[in-house]
Amino acid sequence: MKQIYEEVARRTAAGEPVATVTIIRTRGSTPREVGTKMLVTPTALIGTVGGGCGEGEARKAALDSIADGAVRIVKADLTEEISYDSRGVCGGIMEMLVEPWRDAVAARRIVEALEVGGRVAVATVVQRAGDQLTTRHLVVPATGEVTAETNDNRTDPRLVARVRAVLAEGKTRTVSVDVDGESVPGAEPGADVVVEVQVPAPELVICGAGHIAVPLAAVGKLLGFRVVVIDDRAEYANAGRFPEADEVIADDFREALKRQDLGPDSYAVLVTRGHSYDVDCLLEIVDRPLAYIGMIGSKRRVWAVYKLLHHFGVTVEQLRRIHAPIGIDIGAETPAEIAIAVAAEIIKARNGGSAASLSDAVRDRYAALIERGAELG
Amino acid sequence: MKQIYEEVARRTAAGEPVATVTIIRTRGSTPREVGTKMLVTPTALIGTVGGGCGEGEARKAALDSIADGAVRIVKADLTEEISYDSRGVCGGIMEMLVEPWRDAVAARRIVEALEVGGRVAVATVVQRAGDQLTTRHLVVPATGEVTAETNDNRTDPRLVARVRAVLAEGKTRTVSVDVDGESVPGAEPGADVVVEVQVPAPELVICGAGHIAVPLAAVGKLLGFRVVVIDDRAEYANAGRFPEADEVIADDFREALKRQDLGPDSYAVLVTRGHSYDVDCLLEIVDRPLAYIGMIGSKRRVWAVYKLLHHFGVTVEQLRRIHAPIGIDIGAETPAEIAIAVAAEIIKARNGGSAASLSDAVRDRYAALIERGAELG
Repeated sequence: MKQIYEEVARRTAAGEPVATVTIIRTRGSTPREVGTKMLVTPTALIGTVGGGCGEGEARKAALDSIADGAVRIVKADLTEEISYDSRGVCGGIMEMLVEPWRDAVAARRIVEALEVGGRVAVATVVQRAGDQLTTRHLVVPATGEVTAETNDNRTDPRLVARVRAVLAEGKTRTVSVDVDGESVPGAEPGADVVVEVQVPAPELVICGAGHIAVPLAAVGKLLGFRVVVIDDRAEYANAGRFPEADEVIADDFREALKRQDLGPDSYAVLVTRGHSYDVDCLLEIVDRPLAYIGMIGSKRRVWAVYKLLHHFGVTVEQLRRIHAPIGIDIGAETPAEIAIAVAAEIIKARNGGSAASLSDAVRDRYAALIERGAELG
Repeated sequence: MKQIYEEVARRTAAGEPVATVTIIRTRGSTPREVGTKMLVTPTALIGTVGGGCGEGEARKAALDSIADGAVRIVKADLTEEISYDSRGVCGGIMEMLVEPWRDAVAARRIVEALEVGGRVAVATVVQRAGDQLTTRHLVVPATGEVTAETNDNRTDPRLVARVRAVLAEGKTRTVSVDVDGESVPGAEPGADVVVEVQVPAPELVICGAGHIAVPLAAVGKLLGFRVVVIDDRAEYANAGRFPEADEVIADDFREALKRQDLGPDSYAVLVTRGHSYDVDCLLEIVDRPLAYIGMIGSKRRVWAVYKLLHHFGVTVEQLRRIHAPIGIDIGAETPAEIAIAVAAEIIKARNGGSAASLSDAVRDRYAALIERGAELG
């Protein structure tokens, strides 16, 4: 979305009238998802809301909005009879918000807020007054001050709370909010709020630069992660071995991890060359708010690590966070296969899904054994 | 293994005495698996059977075998107490076969057979006569003639059948075979047979060159597949868009698939731009002996394809082969995530595993609906 808002700011500043088209609701299998944005000018299209599927209607409405300054909602029904002769490219029903932009200031403010980075939402509040639609924009960071488009204090706390809830979920969607009608002259109560979410690129921290780290770094990059590789052996941890990695750190595991800012968008994978390195890493990260911690190893090695960690004061509840043995259960054997099993487990941790992880089968048992004080066998 | 046999042939031809070390049995989590091979000369080591773990012993035994010409089996116990101070690099118990090589002919024959390609096994028959071990080598292709090291017809049909069974499984392992003792003068009955399997690179055929095909081709290559991409649109199906692919075909889907030699090492993924292209592809491949057929699509699209295929005479049993919707259930949304979900499903199809596929939830229902003659809804 940032690119589209940048184009809006740039073109309106240059006096060019533009309109944006944003998918705000879908039903069925539409080609693009909610939040997909396109910019329309009398002579250009930037971005796409679905190619041949509904885009023509959207463009026409956008040109109308450029001409008359009105906000519109366009509904495109892309369902068609599925037969062998229909080529079946489109499907579903989608609603698109069409907004004309004349003033460069509003878009500029949004762009500046997005450039700060971090988790931030752009909330477009759509209200109805008679047969007119109005929109206004709020920029809502995860914490800190909300920027309203106009300095009119119309940042209803219920609205902000609702936007922050969507931001925490991390996925752009449209919600109905019970705001007062008075916030817009003549407006009906309630508003549709399109909450566009900017989430920072998630981070994959790979501890251990051996033969599994190599394909895993490549797959992590393919998935759009910022990839960090750590190993205490410089002959393994170097940029030549990990051309795709964003950062390769040759240092003691614990020291390197201490310096990493690990949070809810961080995913740590332990593929070190021995269990005591795993213990070192886990002592450093197990109580930090990462989204995911996975550790490779035979059941014997995993159990040894858990016992040692417990000995060092790590609680059973903390141990339960760890995905070990790592990966989903697909019989992975080669380094590349293991990298895929790990990547799939990370995607599942982000998005949800029912595919079984190897750790599912042992987590409860290990926890019970440790609680019973079983010895390292 | 081919590389090691090549080195044996090259060095023995040059008069250099060498020995090979092959892991023939493991217990527990050893660093390398059965079939891993290393070449030892008085001055060089090529390959590794596990780095610091047992390799020193193996090398010493190999040098002894070079000196005295005897075949040996070396057992390395790599288990150690796991404590925080042990660095825990090794583990498990492994047995290694140490064979001296003086004659270049035997190794040359093996190399030539491996170079033909296709599925082929190198069987090393280990027999005991008193306190002496002997080895001999057979080259066993999936079909066709067996090459024995010596032209002595000692290719016991039970032995060949057993080797072919391992070859069909596709994974190197050591089996005990009940051969006659007489095949080797003074030998005891029974032999350990190390069956080293060469399987051709599996093939991933991606039908449809859109936004999912791009990361999928990259992941397929990472997994060691030969990757073929097919689309009837040359602006999508071109080498610039698929730099990793082994073959990119811009042609009608059915025509292109007709020309492909698809067998038990072939995996087909349908990510075309519409259901009728899927129907075209499936009509061409659904009765061919591929290892895997997966098809992307909403449930509605999948159901439409199944009904159309059934209408064209495809049986319910054939439809049940298809993995659709494609991929394991990890909530994949972006093209790269979907590529990982598909790759994971393909690995599971090859190796086994319990991770749920999206198609698991609908296969029986679709089959039942079609058998009941349900209409396209």
